[in-house]
Amino acid sequence: MNRLTIVKVGGQVIENTELFKECLSGFKKISGNKILVHGGGNSATDLASKLGIEVKMINGRRKTDASMLDVVIMVYAGLINKKIVAELQAIGCNSAGFSGADFDLIRARKRNHPEIDFGFVGDIEDVHTSELRLLLDEGVIPVIAPLTHDGKTQLLNTNADTVASEMAKELSNYYNTYLVYCCDKKGVLSDPENEESAIPYLQEKEFAALVENNIVSSGMIPKLENGFNAKKNGVTEVIITDVQNLSTGKGTRLSMDSA
Amino acid sequence: MNRLTIVKVGGQVIENTELFKECLSGFKKISGNKILVHGGGNSATDLASKLGIEVKMINGRRKTDASMLDVVIMVYAGLINKKIVAELQAIGCNSAGFSGADFDLIRARKRNHPEIDFGFVGDIEDVHTSELRLLLDEGVIPVIAPLTHDGKTQLLNTNADTVASEMAKELSNYYNTYLVYCCDKKGVLSDPENEESAIPYLQEKEFAALVENNIVSSGMIPKLENGFNAKKNGVTEVIITDVQNLSTGKGTRLSMDSA
Repeated sequence: MNRLTIVKVGGQVIENTELFKECLSGFKKISGNKILVHGGGNSATDLASKLGIEVKMINGRRKTDASMLDVVIMVYAGLINKKIVAELQAIGCNSAGFSGADFDLIRARKRNHPEIDFGFVGDIEDVHTSELRLLLDEGVIPVIAPLTHDGKTQLLNTNADTVASEMAKELSNYYNTYLVYCCDKKGVLSDPENEESAIPYLQEKEFAALVENNIVSSGMIPKLENGFNAKKNGVTEVIITDVQNLSTGKGTRLSMDSA
Repeated sequence: MNRLTIVKVGGQVIENTELFKECLSGFKKISGNKILVHGGGNSATDLASKLGIEVKMINGRRKTDASMLDVVIMVYAGLINKKIVAELQAIGCNSAGFSGADFDLIRARKRNHPEIDFGFVGDIEDVHTSELRLLLDEGVIPVIAPLTHDGKTQLLNTNADTVASEMAKELSNYYNTYLVYCCDKKGVLSDPENEESAIPYLQEKEFAALVENNIVSSGMIPKLENGFNAKKNGVTEVIITDVQNLSTGKGTRLSMDSA
């Protein structure tokens, strides 16, 4: 099987022009087939605020009501996605940007939580990659915005880390798939105060202990949960790293629990 | 050669929910390969106004300054494009949305006018369709937003009628290509007051006379210029019609001047 690297780039990287250029330059150096999945960072919240749309928070997460969904579609699938594609084309990487509605790539169900109304948030049900694989075989680099659809006209906002891991799981049926979460740390730090303390290999039971001791917290928890889910479902390697190590392979590698 | 129909849908149609549903339903009935090119209507101006961006007009045309370009990218490539794709998926048409930067589909040069600064407006230099044709062969329906790029990271705003005609010209090398401008009239009217006066066949010299007599005016003039340009450059048929006749073939057909 050919090698495929799926890189998920976080908002902190995308919103920093210099860092983002460095990121794309590192991304270019990765050999084999590749896919870039991007988040949106604060741009959607900023636009909502300019438009006077009240951003409702639920348990620290933004609620995606109808106006917020339009903002997210405009910023993620429009501004960020097309600017990444134009940047990649300019450095000689033939790319094309997609949402989960394009090619029916990612079908989702609107989240139905018994107590909390998350709004237009999608939980992924199905990933369909035949057209994407055809394009990968032609050397095209797909750039994926974290939006899905329900197949009944409704677009849905979906976590970019989850989009990346679900795509990696499905594509691991066809490629030796590497999933790289590119963030602002050199990996999972054993000491949050020490940037050089990235753990080289992390098992799920060690991850549980890190969470219990508040060493790993907030956004890193669902990211690692997504990562372990991918690792347990056919993905060859899951790596947490930063922009500088995007093409070196350094960072934290998730590994299966030893017996 | 296989048959390909490129339908350009105007903003007046897109902004009218009922009319647009009818349009997609008519579009679905067209047999053979097809592409949908969409404009943006007033949505971009509306968003700019909500954001307090001053819309500068030059000779009746909107100037695309940097803030307006961002708005146009968000509305055209984001909101409108992805909503069309989600609508098409829901009626069983496997579609995917693109701008001119995706696959390096449409390369343009920033307009360099000796007297007027149009801002980030692109004049098309090159249309590259190899990936698009691969997708057409798989039965995918490309949905094209009227944005181009210069290959050096800059996205550019480009007239959707021109995007449609330039794509039609290039694709006529590979397909029997039909270019359909779907607007709010049954064709080019010989009497602007009479909706039933659509001219069945229109030659370029007759078009010139209609312009001279102010029977054809404003947006219809560049549309017909684009249409005649396509007709003279390999496109099989160029038809001006409305939503109701999208799949019937009725409307005004452009024809070459008789000797």
